[in-house]
Order: sequence, then C-alpha cells, then structure tokens
Amino acid sequence: MPPTGRRSVADVAIIMGSQSDWATMRHAAETLDALGVSHDDRIVSAHRTPKRLYDFATGAKAAGYKVIVAGAGGAAHLPGMTAALTPLPVFGVPVESKALSGQDSLLSIVQMPAGIPVGTLAIGRAGAVNAALLAAAVLALGDPDLATRLDDWRARQADAVAEAPTDA
Amino acid sequence: MPPTGRRSVADVAIIMGSQSDWATMRHAAETLDALGVSHDDRIVSAHRTPKRLYDFATGAKAAGYKVIVAGAGGAAHLPGMTAALTPLPVFGVPVESKALSGQDSLLSIVQMPAGIPVGTLAIGRAGAVNAALLAAAVLALGDPDLATRLDDWRARQADAVAEAPTDA
Amino acid sequence: MPPTGRRSVADVAIIMGSQSDWATMRHAAETLDALGVSHDDRIVSAHRTPKRLYDFATGAKAAGYKVIVAGAGGAAHLPGMTAALTPLPVFGVPVESKALSGQDSLLSIVQMPAGIPVGTLAIGRAGAVNAALLAAAVLALGDPDLATRLDDWRARQADAVAEAPTDA
Amino acid sequence: MPPTGRRSVADVAIIMGSQSDWATMRHAAETLDALGVSHDDRIVSAHRTPKRLYDFATGAKAAGYKVIVAGAGGAAHLPGMTAALTPLPVFGVPVESKALSGQDSLLSIVQMPAGIPVGTLAIGRAGAVNAALLAAAVLALGDPDLATRLDDWRARQADAVAEAPTDA
Amino acid sequence: MPPTGRRSVADVAIIMGSQSDWATMRHAAETLDALGVSHDDRIVSAHRTPKRLYDFATGAKAAGYKVIVAGAGGAAHLPGMTAALTPLPVFGVPVESKALSGQDSLLSIVQMPAGIPVGTLAIGRAGAVNAALLAAAVLALGDPDLATRLDDWRARQADAVAEAPTDA
Amino acid sequence: MPPTGRRSVADVAIIMGSQSDWATMRHAAETLDALGVSHDDRIVSAHRTPKRLYDFATGAKAAGYKVIVAGAGGAAHLPGMTAALTPLPVFGVPVESKALSGQDSLLSIVQMPAGIPVGTLAIGRAGAVNAALLAAAVLALGDPDLATRLDDWRARQADAVAEAPTDA
Amino acid sequence: MPPTGRRSVADVAIIMGSQSDWATMRHAAETLDALGVSHDDRIVSAHRTPKRLYDFATGAKAAGYKVIVAGAGGAAHLPGMTAALTPLPVFGVPVESKALSGQDSLLSIVQMPAGIPVGTLAIGRAGAVNAALLAAAVLALGDPDLATRLDDWRARQADAVAEAPTDA
Amino acid sequence: MPPTGRRSVADVAIIMGSQSDWATMRHAAETLDALGVSHDDRIVSAHRTPKRLYDFATGAKAAGYKVIVAGAGGAAHLPGMTAALTPLPVFGVPVESKALSGQDSLLSIVQMPAGIPVGTLAIGRAGAVNAALLAAAVLALGDPDLATRLDDWRARQADAVAEAPTDA
Repeated sequence: MPPTGRRSVADVAIIMGSQSDWATMRHAAETLDALGVSHDDRIVSAHRTPKRLYDFATGAKAAGYKVIVAGAGGAAHLPGMTAALTPLPVFGVPVESKALSGQDSLLSIVQMPAGIPVGTLAIGRAGAVNAALLAAAVLALGDPDLATRLDDWRARQADAVAEAPTDA
Repeated sequence: MPPTGRRSVADVAIIMGSQSDWATMRHAAETLDALGVSHDDRIVSAHRTPKRLYDFATGAKAAGYKVIVAGAGGAAHLPGMTAALTPLPVFGVPVESKALSGQDSLLSIVQMPAGIPVGTLAIGRAGAVNAALLAAAVLALGDPDLATRLDDWRARQADAVAEAPTDA
Repeated sequence: MPPTGRRSVADVAIIMGSQSDWATMRHAAETLDALGVSHDDRIVSAHRTPKRLYDFATGAKAAGYKVIVAGAGGAAHLPGMTAALTPLPVFGVPVESKALSGQDSLLSIVQMPAGIPVGTLAIGRAGAVNAALLAAAVLALGDPDLATRLDDWRARQADAVAEAPTDA
Repeated sequence: MPPTGRRSVADVAIIMGSQSDWATMRHAAETLDALGVSHDDRIVSAHRTPKRLYDFATGAKAAGYKVIVAGAGGAAHLPGMTAALTPLPVFGVPVESKALSGQDSLLSIVQMPAGIPVGTLAIGRAGAVNAALLAAAVLALGDPDLATRLDDWRARQADAVAEAPTDA
Repeated sequence: MPPTGRRSVADVAIIMGSQSDWATMRHAAETLDALGVSHDDRIVSAHRTPKRLYDFATGAKAAGYKVIVAGAGGAAHLPGMTAALTPLPVFGVPVESKALSGQDSLLSIVQMPAGIPVGTLAIGRAGAVNAALLAAAVLALGDPDLATRLDDWRARQADAVAEAPTDA
Repeated sequence: MPPTGRRSVADVAIIMGSQSDWATMRHAAETLDALGVSHDDRIVSAHRTPKRLYDFATGAKAAGYKVIVAGAGGAAHLPGMTAALTPLPVFGVPVESKALSGQDSLLSIVQMPAGIPVGTLAIGRAGAVNAALLAAAVLALGDPDLATRLDDWRARQADAVAEAPTDA
Repeated sequence: MPPTGRRSVADVAIIMGSQSDWATMRHAAETLDALGVSHDDRIVSAHRTPKRLYDFATGAKAAGYKVIVAGAGGAAHLPGMTAALTPLPVFGVPVESKALSGQDSLLSIVQMPAGIPVGTLAIGRAGAVNAALLAAAVLALGDPDLATRLDDWRARQADAVAEAPTDA
Repeated sequence: MPPTGRRSVADVAIIMGSQSDWATMRHAAETLDALGVSHDDRIVSAHRTPKRLYDFATGAKAAGYKVIVAGAGGAAHLPGMTAALTPLPVFGVPVESKALSGQDSLLSIVQMPAGIPVGTLAIGRAGAVNAALLAAAVLALGDPDLATRLDDWRARQADAVAEAPTDA
C-alpha cells in the first residue's frame, strides 16, 4: 500500500487490526489474487493507531480504492469506524477471538446502527474468502472481464464438489 | 417488478421471505427512494416457493438488476440461496424473529461457507436501512451523481445529530 | 447413488453439504448398515451446487427414496431447501462448526418457518446416529422385519449399559 | 384418546406437558385436521405424572398409534422420555418458555444422546404446525391418498404467497 | 449398590447417565469418601434404560437412600426424571458436553417446572464436588458428627488458600 | 425473622437481595406455608448491606435455621456468599433480570467453584416454588409428618393434571 | 458543555451515541448531581459524527475533564474509540438494544484488546448509575469532601434497605 | 502485601480468587511494573476465605491502597463483594473459565446492581493488562509523572504497530 496521500493503483484495500489477524485475512488476499483483483494489505488498529485509521479511511476514496475489506476481532471497531469515515463500501470480517470464538467480533461488526453499513461476512477464514468474493462481485459490475473470471471461479468451485463422499 | 423473463429497469431488487417481512424491509425501500435508486420489491419464499426463488435468482442478472437485498427471518435461507444462484452482490437483512429475536436469522444468513458470500447487515430495521445504503454505495462506484446524493444524505445525517441531549 | 433420473433401490438418501461432513454423516450410514436399511450417500452442496440440489430433491421421491437424511454445518441450508423441494420426510443433522460449535448449524436447520418441516437431531455424531434411527423407525412402520431388527438393536443397547461405573 | 389399554383408532398422538402448552400444540391438531389425519390429544406431564408417561409411552404402539408428537417447555423431558419408551417415531416441539424464550426447551429436546432420537421442530407455533406436517409426511409413505392431500396442501401454500408486498 | 429391592446401607446414591460421566462424577464419590459419607454409584440411563430408572427412583427411599446425586450431559433428563419419581432431595450435576460445553446439560437440568425440584450445581468437576458437599450438608442436619467433619473439611479448605500467588 | 442474635423458631430462612425480588420469592413463602413449614423472610443485600449478610449468614445456624433459600438477580452474589459463610444447605433462586432475562442471575448463582455449593433452581417463579419444595424435602428427612404432607402435596399436584387439553 | 476548544469546568463528560441513549444516561447525570460532581452531557456519535468524536476525545484532557462516561448501544464503538484517543479513564455503559437486549452493546464495549481499556458497567440504567458512582470514586481519591459525600450516599443507600419484604 | 492492619505503601492491590488465576492476573502485575506503579498481589477467595475478603476490603482504604484490581472466574463474586466493602474504585477481570469460556465470569462481574460499581475489563489476559492500564490512568490524574509514563507507553504501543502484515 502506498504511503498515505499517494494515489494507489489497487482496487481493494484489505485492512486488519493487528498482525495476528493476517492468519485470517490472508485468505482474502489469496482469493483476490486468484481472481486477478489488485489489493493493498495494511495493518490499521482502530484502538492503538486511531490517527492512522482516520487518515486512511478519510483518504481511501481519493487514494483510488473502490472497496474496503476490514478484519478485526473482539470489540472489533475497525470495520464500523472505517465505514463511518468513507463513502466506499466496507465489508467486515469477524476474526475468531480466543474466549468467545468470534461471537464478540461478529456482534461488534454486524450490529451497526442505521446510517453506517458494514456488510459482514462469516467468522474466520470463510468470512475472509467471502469478503474477497463479494468485493470482486461489486467490482465486476463495472468490469465484464472480472465478471467472467468470477463466473469461471464459481464454475470450477461447483465442479470440484464430488458426487459421493470418500473415506480418508 | 416485471414478470419473470422480462427486463427490469430497476437497479436493486428487494426480496423477502414473506409479507410479514415487509414491515422491516420497507425501510430498505424508503431509503433507496430517498437516494433516488430504483428498486423492485418482491416476495420470494425460499421454502414455500423454491421454484420462484430459483427462477428469480438465476435470471436476476439478465433482468438487469445490479444488487440484491434479501430479508428473511428464522432459519433464513433466502439470502444465501439467492447468492448461490447469481453472481450479483447479495446483501442480507436478518429479520427479527419471535422467540430468538433474530439471533437465528443472523446466524443463518451470516455464517455462509467459503465460496458464496452474503454481506450481512444488522438485525431488523437498522439492517434494512443499511442494506439500502450499502447497495447505494456499490452503485455509486459507477454513478457519480448517486455518489453525490449519498454524500449529501450522510452529511445531512451528521448535521442532524444534536450537540446535547434534551429531555422528552 | 444412481445417476440422476435413474431409479434407486435404496430407501434412505444421506446427503451432506461437503466432503468434510462425511466424518459426521458416516455414523448415519453405519447405523443404517447395522439395521439392514439400504442407503445412498451423496454430496449435495446447497450453495456450491444449487442445481444439483434442485435436481436431487425434486426427483427424490420418483427415484424411490422414502426418507432423506441431510447433514450440514454453519449457515446450513441443505436440509431446509431439500424439504422445500420434496414431500418426503427430511431429517437434519447439524454438523459441528468450527467457531460456533454447531450452534449456527442447529438454528439454521431447526428454526424452519411453518409449512416446511425438518426433523432435527442433535449436533454432531449423536445426531447422525439418531437421524438413521429415526429414519429406520419411520420405515419400520411399513416393514415388520425392520421393526423387529430395530427392537433388537435397542434391546442390545439397553443391555450394554453397565450397572456400575468402572475406572478406566 | 381412549383409556390406557384400549386400542385407539387415531394415527397420531399429540401429547404435551401441561394445559398451557395447548396454546401452542393446538396448531399441530388443527394442521392434522386440515390434512384429514386422525389424532388424540393428551396431557402427559413427564414430571408431575411420570407414571402416566410410562404407561402411555410403553403402550403407544400397541394402542395403534403410528407417530407421536410431543410438546414441552423449559427442562422439556417429555419428548425424549417418550422416545426412550416406544419404538415409534417421536417428533418434539419446544414450547416457548418465559425467561429463556424456548432456548432451554429446544436444547432439552434436540440434544438427545446417540441411541434415542427425537426429530425436533422449531420453537413455538411454527414447530407445532411442522410437527403435524412431518407426521403426515411419514404417514403418507404408506397412504397415497394422504400423500395427495399433502401435495395439495403444499401447493395451496405456495399459491398463497403473493408476488409483491403490500402495506397493511 | 445392592440389587434392586434389597435395602442399601448407603446414605447417598450417585447415579449417572453413562460410563463416560464417571470421569466427572467420581469427584462426587471421592468427596463423599473424604467426608465419611457412604454412597452407592450406579449407571442409570434415562434414555437407554428407562425401566431401570423407573425402578431405581421409585424404590430409592425404601432402599434407604436419603439423598440422590445425579449427573448427566446433553439433553440431560436423568436428574429431573429421578426427582419426578422420588420424594428424596435430588441434586443434579450438568456434565460438560462436547459441542455445547454443558450449556445444554445445565438448562436441561436446572429449568425444571414448578412442582419437581432439582438442586443444580455447576457444570463439570466443580459441580460434582459440590453436589457431594451439599448432600453432606443435608445429612449433617441430622448427624452432628458429620457436621463436625464438614466444618473441618471447610476449615482445611480455607487454610489451604495461600496468601500470595507464587510463580510455579 | 427475629433480630440478629436472637434464636429463631423457623426452619427456613428466605432471603432476597431487594424488595423487588419479593414478587418472585413470595412463591417460595407461599409454598412453605402450604406445606406447613415455618420460615422467616428477610431482605439481605450482598452489595448494599454486606455487613448484614455477614452477620446473618455466620449466625444462621446458631439462630436455628436448617435450610436457607436465597433469591437474587443480575450479578447475583447473595446465595454464593451466604453459602461461603454457613455450613447450612443453601438453595439459590435466579430472579429474572431485565436485560438478560435471568441468564446472568443463573450463571452467577450456579457456577460456584468446587468447595462451596449452592443448589440452584430454575429462573423465576418456578425456581422459587421449587426451592421451597427442595427445602421441605430436606427437612422431611428428619420429620415424617412433613414427609407425609409433602407426599400429599405431590399426589394432589399429579391429580390436578387433566387428561385432555381444553380450549380456554 | 463548552464549544470545542474552550476549557470546561466540569470534571466528568457524559457522552452518548444518540439522543435516545439519554433515557439511560440521564441516570448517570442525576447520580453525579446527587453527589455534587460537575458534568457536561453531550451527544457524540462514533458513526454519524466521527469528526466530532475525534475532536472531543483528543481534546478532552486539555478541556479539563478528568473522567469520561460513555454510553452506546448495538455495535457500540463510542467508549472504545474515545479510550483510544484520550489518556483519561473511560467508563462504558452498554445501552440496552432492541433485538439483543444489550448483549451486543456489552460485548462491543467490554471486549477491548490489550492496550486500550474501557471500564465497563452493567447493561442499562444500573450501568449508568454505576458509571457515575465509579467516576465519583475516582475523583474522590483527590477530593476528601467528595469522598465524604460518597460515603454518606452509600450509607444512606444501606439504610434504605428494609429488613423484611412487604407486599405491594 | 503487608499483613492485615499494617499500612501498605503500594497504590494498587491486585487480588484474585485462587492461585490458578495468577496465570491471568500476572499480566496486570507486569503491566503495572512496566509503568512504575507499586502493587501488592494477594489471593483472596470470596468463597473459601470470606473472612479474609471482609477484612481486606474493609481495610483497603486505610491500608493506603488507592485502586483495587480483582480477578475471578466462574460465579465470580470477588470483585463485586470487594466493591461492596470499600469506597475505592474496583476494576474486575473475568478470568476465562473452563466450560463457559468466561461468559459466566463476565456476567457475574459486570451485571452489578445500581449502587455498587465494578469497572469490568475483557475476559482473560487482555482484561488483566487493561485493568492495570485503567488503574494507572486513574492514578495519573494525581501524578503527572505517571501520566507522562503512561503517554510514553501508549506512544510506544502505537509505534509498534507495523504498517503491513508479514508472513510468519
């Protein structure tokens, strides 16, 4: 991701609250890679680096991003605060927390009040993959080539489902 | 909404599992109206009218819709099954259920497996409003006029927040 | 399980959302084997292969199945959507999910709206065993020999309960 | 319902833990009436009348019942104990409890150990309706006329779903 | 524990739903041993051996037991059904279940309807220890020597609490 | 209840955290009245009157009480702290709280650590009735007349269960 | 509360996410009034007025505040984001939300990651009262007169607890 | 920590319910060490050593403590009972419990009734660190040097957040 203030050429910004969230959020990055969607990956802690959050989110549209994918755990404020500071669509990924298994992350992200939406995905890895797929679906509305790549990805996914279960 | 197979001119399809969900989902419709975004509103029950769901969802893109907003309660399968049948972005609204207050609706919508995303909003009215706002944010990526209207809407919302609380 | 459209000779279809669900659902298969009830085992993903689900479920009765056992996890839509597409009795098994331990699976399966029932069993292995036993109890209504085998199975189960606990 | 020991002519026994459960369970009775399925309705409290429960459940098959629908709330032991005492299929309805809204009823009914199944439906009225529909689907396996009536009921249900929502 | 019908000389009956519950319930047995309270330990499955439950519980008072400690997991019906069949005080121990960590066990035991009480202890080992202590406290009302032993046990417990934490 | 330090002639002390808990706990008092068991009813707030709690609980046995029934809501510390300060059996009633419907009360009372037991009953009115019944069952161990009265009470309860439900 | 940038003379700032939270937070204000602690009350929406939040929180210490009490509901980000932007102690009040009764508010406020603390009080009115009392206890460390007033308040509270419950 | 009755020179008392809680609470101690805040660490079991709790809490202010940090698990009564017995600010740390992962600890600590506040932190290690930081923030109100050290600690924490995630 370029330094703040410089224009990005990536369509999607993947942000997360801490280094440890990368174990989850890398699945978003890998999915975007598989679909040929450019992305910048950045650690932005709502709590420990609130200034960085303000600068990033208020400048995200001007920097050229189109969609933001934000992952966080526990009292997860990053997706919602980002959504409060940018008109871009924000998709939130509840990272699985230790004690409460991500139930706190989920409620902290999804239960936004009327006025500031965060499109929330499932807890953990599935949510990270799906945030990337949803970002791609949004971008595909204006990018027929990406739409085709996304259709292909989904078709391959369907084809990969075996007819019958097999013992390991 | 036009009969199945005819081309719509609306950008957003608002679908819901039953007539009773309209008390919640009308807030999505009203929000889109306030933003000048066209929408069709339709009852599609995943369980009672699965054929209607299949036809609607597989034809939604060809019908010209760009974003789908789907609301349902309880074992809420409508958003996820729609997402399984269309490449368009789907945003889900958990309708508040009687016994479990929408906790069942929320988990049934948000916990989708990797591969088929549903961007999930809050339980109830706030979620319906926010699904509309998120749909608008997506459409605004390709519609600068809508982006301006959305910015104005958000600015008015911010201005409407009083400085100090007042007694009723 | 025979190719779609061909007539099966099995009484029970065991379907599951993914290969990974087999670790749970094989206990249903083994229980049916122990009771001498024929079954076909098949992977049908409501989300990744919705067409396969539609074809399977709408054709299940004509194919000769009498009872369907469906297992799925997370936002588990397979049992409910199958029940929406067939008049056959459907028994659902909530597979234990990673973050929420099957609480999402359970609510997604059991909280069906009035009109489309899914008889839901316990989360995980116990639920898979019991779905098979319940399917057998249903089939036994029209099969006195199976009723006898089921009685024997239950009697052996009772006999196997020791009087006093023993240290391992 | 005939006195204990006399042979019933009803196919379904609807039992419930207390008079107050009838507000929920009558929906099962009415649904069976609509489908032309005979039923006896009886109060059997697992806790206050355990002897009645033992007598009823151990004699249910000999009395001629084919399916048992059991509703109870709170620490709901009626469905599971009935299932322990009869080889007939038992479908359980978690009645909505006061403090915990039926979450206790649901878990007490659905989380049966391997060996004794209870096919569990949704909390409250929807569960009662669906227990009746599931009982009918089971009986329809051996009763083509009932199968036709059930198909008709489902078709009418589908037809009753309006295309578009209307304001009240 | 003596065969059914023979008079026991133990004051407490410890019953549990399965052999696997012994890992938890042995802590009740060991605590009673430490307090010099006689006990019989027996497996009584409400679901797999309902007749054994009926015989045990209806005969428990005549057999000479004064207090019953009952442990079970999941849809735990053993404590409540025992309480329905005996006038003796029954203390229930929710055994930790696999998927739901004993939340199902706890609600199935504690949420008894008015009329049939089960004094419920904590989930797991602590609950087993405490069921024994509570049984002892009850017996101590009529046994001054036991009251003294219980006081001593509690005093030693208090003395064993160190003043300051120390690194292991 | 007599002033602290004076000897009571009641067998059961019913204590509660606040005046508002009386709406629940009076059902314990009325049940004891119906069984002819003497009781004193007292407000003892663990948080607002901790000194009163210490004095009451440490003196309860000397005052002649045999069983303590304690009701409290929210972060309900009264039953557990009482149990820490007296060797008498303590039965806890989780009073239904406003926001969390007594789930906080239940967990605060039942999840006691090994060493200090509280026999916990159901949330709300049912729990209050049952705490009284359990206290009576304990006292009946040393009081054959009370045992007879309790048996009669239970027999009348069983007789009051109608055979068939009736419409209101 | 003085305009941003001007020095306040109040010791406590009570902030809340919306006008509707005042019904809860006024109990904090009234409690501080009763204790003679000065306070400013202000609506600061983390989501709708993030700039106002940033300005308020970063300037709160310079403005002369010593303690901040912050109430919010749902995905409640106000207390945590305020704590991220000020070194002052922040006490959070989870406002009771409609669907989830404040469970979302509670987890969103209390589950802060290591590094940025929010001292969280109970859901709803009790939490608002207690946030004020905790703020007063903090201020009393440096204000012996306030300490005396707080002691008096607590003594009056204890005296107001009646000995025996009375029927309404 | 000095023997009871002797004056301490530490500003913060860290108390915990058992030796096993030290694995969590040591993070509070280490954080206070890093900030140069004096502390005494002591095991005080509300349930096993209620007299020690009473003596400690009623004497804490006279002993010179200014803030109390209390950690406990399960039916965690230590923080609330301490708060009932001292006018000092009390911060509670819910220790992660085995079966319920600290959900019981959290509710037992945070849901205090109006009148006696406990400022509650997150479940587990994060909560212990944050209780120390909150205690330091309170002390810093009257100690400019500590305020500076706390600011430095927070600045270093912010600087330690990397810009981009890195693969392990």
